[in-house]
Amino acid sequence: MKTEPRNQWLVLAGFIVLCIVTGGIGGFATQDAIDGWYNTIAKPWWTPPNAIFGPVWTLLYVMMAVAAWLVWKTKDRLGPAMLLFAAQLGFNLLWSLLFFGARSPGMALIEVIFLWSSVLLTMLAFFGRQRTAGWLFVPYLAWVSFAAILNLAIWRMN
Amino acid sequence: MKTEPRNQWLVLAGFIVLCIVTGGIGGFATQDAIDGWYNTIAKPWWTPPNAIFGPVWTLLYVMMAVAAWLVWKTKDRLGPAMLLFAAQLGFNLLWSLLFFGARSPGMALIEVIFLWSSVLLTMLAFFGRQRTAGWLFVPYLAWVSFAAILNLAIWRMN
Repeated sequence: MKTEPRNQWLVLAGFIVLCIVTGGIGGFATQDAIDGWYNTIAKPWWTPPNAIFGPVWTLLYVMMAVAAWLVWKTKDRLGPAMLLFAAQLGFNLLWSLLFFGARSPGMALIEVIFLWSSVLLTMLAFFGRQRTAGWLFVPYLAWVSFAAILNLAIWRMN
Repeated sequence: MKTEPRNQWLVLAGFIVLCIVTGGIGGFATQDAIDGWYNTIAKPWWTPPNAIFGPVWTLLYVMMAVAAWLVWKTKDRLGPAMLLFAAQLGFNLLWSLLFFGARSPGMALIEVIFLWSSVLLTMLAFFGRQRTAGWLFVPYLAWVSFAAILNLAIWRMN
């Protein structure tokens, strides 16, 4: 089934809204913890300023949405690559809920293993379907790697 | 002169980097004022939480970059529409430097007239060249309108 060009852009918009809303839910659900608890706990000196995270995550959500759309445009729409994408998006939200919502760097540290693995697997699956989609996941995997190390450092210091 | 498809994506990446870096300069140059001075001055009850601005501006910078790229892909690359785009981006940075850098809501309020007008004119010029590019400027104009009203309210309260 061939999709009209107009519908393709609606699908792109849909993926962007999906990812931004997922990130937004994580952000809103945890804003109190970020403004309060998170500012009081011990953190390593190389922790980025709070204001960095919003813009970085917004860019990463847009990039992962574009990547998913590029894969969706190939024939294999609801194949394993897209299921992995949905899984990593779920793990992404869950991490925020555990780290900030439950204020538990320990639970978040266990969860981040699933998040990191699902991002890696999605990236590899996307590389197999559409090169650009794979490359769009490289900064995301790098940032999640950094976030996992930061999570580990914060867990050890508190 | 026809551009290779590969180069077109590099140009898109270039526009995104240009807009994000411009926003980043504004953000970094003013971070101290946002964390300090801005949190202490009187603001209306409908002021959004600080954490909203980073994600919103990041999305708007990506959208304006995509809009500029769509216009760039038409024949008229360095025409008046692109000059207006450059002007509004400059006014956008200048607003941050005046409001936060100089901590002067009054100067920023005068400047925001130029910012708002240049965004409106760019939007109209983009609509004339490429419909999607024009639409991508609508949320930006709406946000700058809101920011201008917030600027006015803060100026009156302090």
